[in-house]
Amino acid sequence: MNINELGEFGLVDRLAKKIQIRNASTLKGVGDDAAVIAASSRCSLLSTDMLLEGIHFDLTYVPMKHLGYKAAMASFSDVYAMNGYPQQMVVSLGISKRFGVEHIEELYEGMLLACERHGVDLVGGDTSTSLTGLTIGVSVLGECEPDKVVYRSGAKPTDLVCLTGSLGSAYMGLLLLEREKKVFEVNPNAAPQLTGHEQIIEKYLKPEANREAILSLREADVVPTSMIDISDGLASDMLQICKQSGVGAHIYLDKIPIAKQCMDMAEEMNFDAVTAALNGGEDYELLFTIPLSLHSKVKDLGGAAIIGHIVEQSKGALLIPPNGEPVRLQAQGFR
Amino acid sequence: MNINELGEFGLVDRLAKKIQIRNASTLKGVGDDAAVIAASSRCSLLSTDMLLEGIHFDLTYVPMKHLGYKAAMASFSDVYAMNGYPQQMVVSLGISKRFGVEHIEELYEGMLLACERHGVDLVGGDTSTSLTGLTIGVSVLGECEPDKVVYRSGAKPTDLVCLTGSLGSAYMGLLLLEREKKVFEVNPNAAPQLTGHEQIIEKYLKPEANREAILSLREADVVPTSMIDISDGLASDMLQICKQSGVGAHIYLDKIPIAKQCMDMAEEMNFDAVTAALNGGEDYELLFTIPLSLHSKVKDLGGAAIIGHIVEQSKGALLIPPNGEPVRLQAQGFR
Repeated sequence: MNINELGEFGLVDRLAKKIQIRNASTLKGVGDDAAVIAASSRCSLLSTDMLLEGIHFDLTYVPMKHLGYKAAMASFSDVYAMNGYPQQMVVSLGISKRFGVEHIEELYEGMLLACERHGVDLVGGDTSTSLTGLTIGVSVLGECEPDKVVYRSGAKPTDLVCLTGSLGSAYMGLLLLEREKKVFEVNPNAAPQLTGHEQIIEKYLKPEANREAILSLREADVVPTSMIDISDGLASDMLQICKQSGVGAHIYLDKIPIAKQCMDMAEEMNFDAVTAALNGGEDYELLFTIPLSLHSKVKDLGGAAIIGHIVEQSKGALLIPPNGEPVRLQAQGFR
Repeated sequence: MNINELGEFGLVDRLAKKIQIRNASTLKGVGDDAAVIAASSRCSLLSTDMLLEGIHFDLTYVPMKHLGYKAAMASFSDVYAMNGYPQQMVVSLGISKRFGVEHIEELYEGMLLACERHGVDLVGGDTSTSLTGLTIGVSVLGECEPDKVVYRSGAKPTDLVCLTGSLGSAYMGLLLLEREKKVFEVNPNAAPQLTGHEQIIEKYLKPEANREAILSLREADVVPTSMIDISDGLASDMLQICKQSGVGAHIYLDKIPIAKQCMDMAEEMNFDAVTAALNGGEDYELLFTIPLSLHSKVKDLGGAAIIGHIVEQSKGALLIPPNGEPVRLQAQGFR
């Protein structure tokens, strides 16, 4: 269905009908000049992301529903990375003529599924035409007890560096999807070869923000000294903690968890799996530091692994291979 | 300067240096996964807007600094329209290769000037490349005492319909700038003829969100029964109040304030000034309703004019000319 048939207000009404409110703090959602959120004794956390077609996603192989899910998850992940819980979300869309009402409904479906799983209310937005492509803006509001907010700036020498889940899979998933796209462009009858690669594809197309890790930190009564989510890659994100905390870090290469399917695909493509882990990004795992004295609690932290420790700034931010010379962690620029 | 020389992080650092924090509630601004805002006994108001090049602005005649100012003002206006005060803002930018560091700094300058004038903190953002054009996403967080939030849904029959400032000027300013652009395209040596039209041009390029009106409502101890800001035009925005309040409205055509420069330009262009007021939009004035019993207080409300009254839904949403038949108010669709 053509969006012009419905008009902006019609489209917004249609999308709004599917929204359910889950948080008692959401006094007013979609439909006014601003959403209204009840006062609380907790701090508010506010974060924003923008996803642009052709830069952040390729609709050749990213289904609209997955895209909506991922856009929401990426924002939720920023709130978890502060040790908080996402509660409300607003969404802006710039939509070119190429898209019909059904496309936007699918995108919304993915967003609402993410909201349902993470207890978030979609409370507002802004919808307009665009000249080219699809642009998605997501801002999310979360909350946290004032004394439990975790910044990037609190890491101290001797702290342990911990990481949830595994790294590199999202990037290898992207490389696989790019490869199959090229095959398809040459031969439109070729079926994509994706069997056996579910882990890396799901990690790229449908990542899950790590709410469980935050719940287990809470349960183990551990407040990390610093935390960030892995959106740009381990190297870049570790350096953010180092920079803001005024410290260095030693990361042990053989401690970085990499999933088997990620390893396998890297080998098949003759690509270095460690590079995918260090610089690939979009894993949405949590990188955090805890005092050495809490060493024994790590086993309770939802499968988090110790991958290194914090050192004095003068000792550098280094990646240490099992045999061989340490190398400096390097951030990537615009991707 | 080329943005790639600085890189994403370099650009963000450079922009962040100019930011000042003004609200004690802003515990952490730019530089972490999310901004942190202190708990308060007031409600939070959350609103978002997206501005796309070629749809919402034309950089041929909109200077970057003005664009930044206007993008921020449009968002602040949404918070004022809830009877609240904007406090924190996050900004997302999608930037194509065409733009240099200086362009983005100018855009930021305009945003920061708007923040300074309205006491708002810029607390975060997301910056990325785009394939074409400039995209600006602004989300703003405001606050309001729980019992003073004004929705679009509270208007009651017999309420007075009030409007701050005048309408139509922003749209006539846009038409003038479009005309001068066409002249320039034909004859690049022609200087734009803008003298004497400052009011309409300023209203389009550098609108001011009406904080004063909210302060005078507060001072006069008046809480409107409903309120909205004029972003889509009086007709469309009045209909939003009617729809959400389940009422009708009678608006008197000769009571709609239209500035002299707007009238003059409309005459010069052979355009109907009333159409500009009804459907032009982007005036960022406030349209609100108050109980009839507060009639005597209107003179204290910062120059607000009474332009009509609320009626039962069955009596319709009508524009009533001094002589002649009433006509139904009609909303515009996608613009």
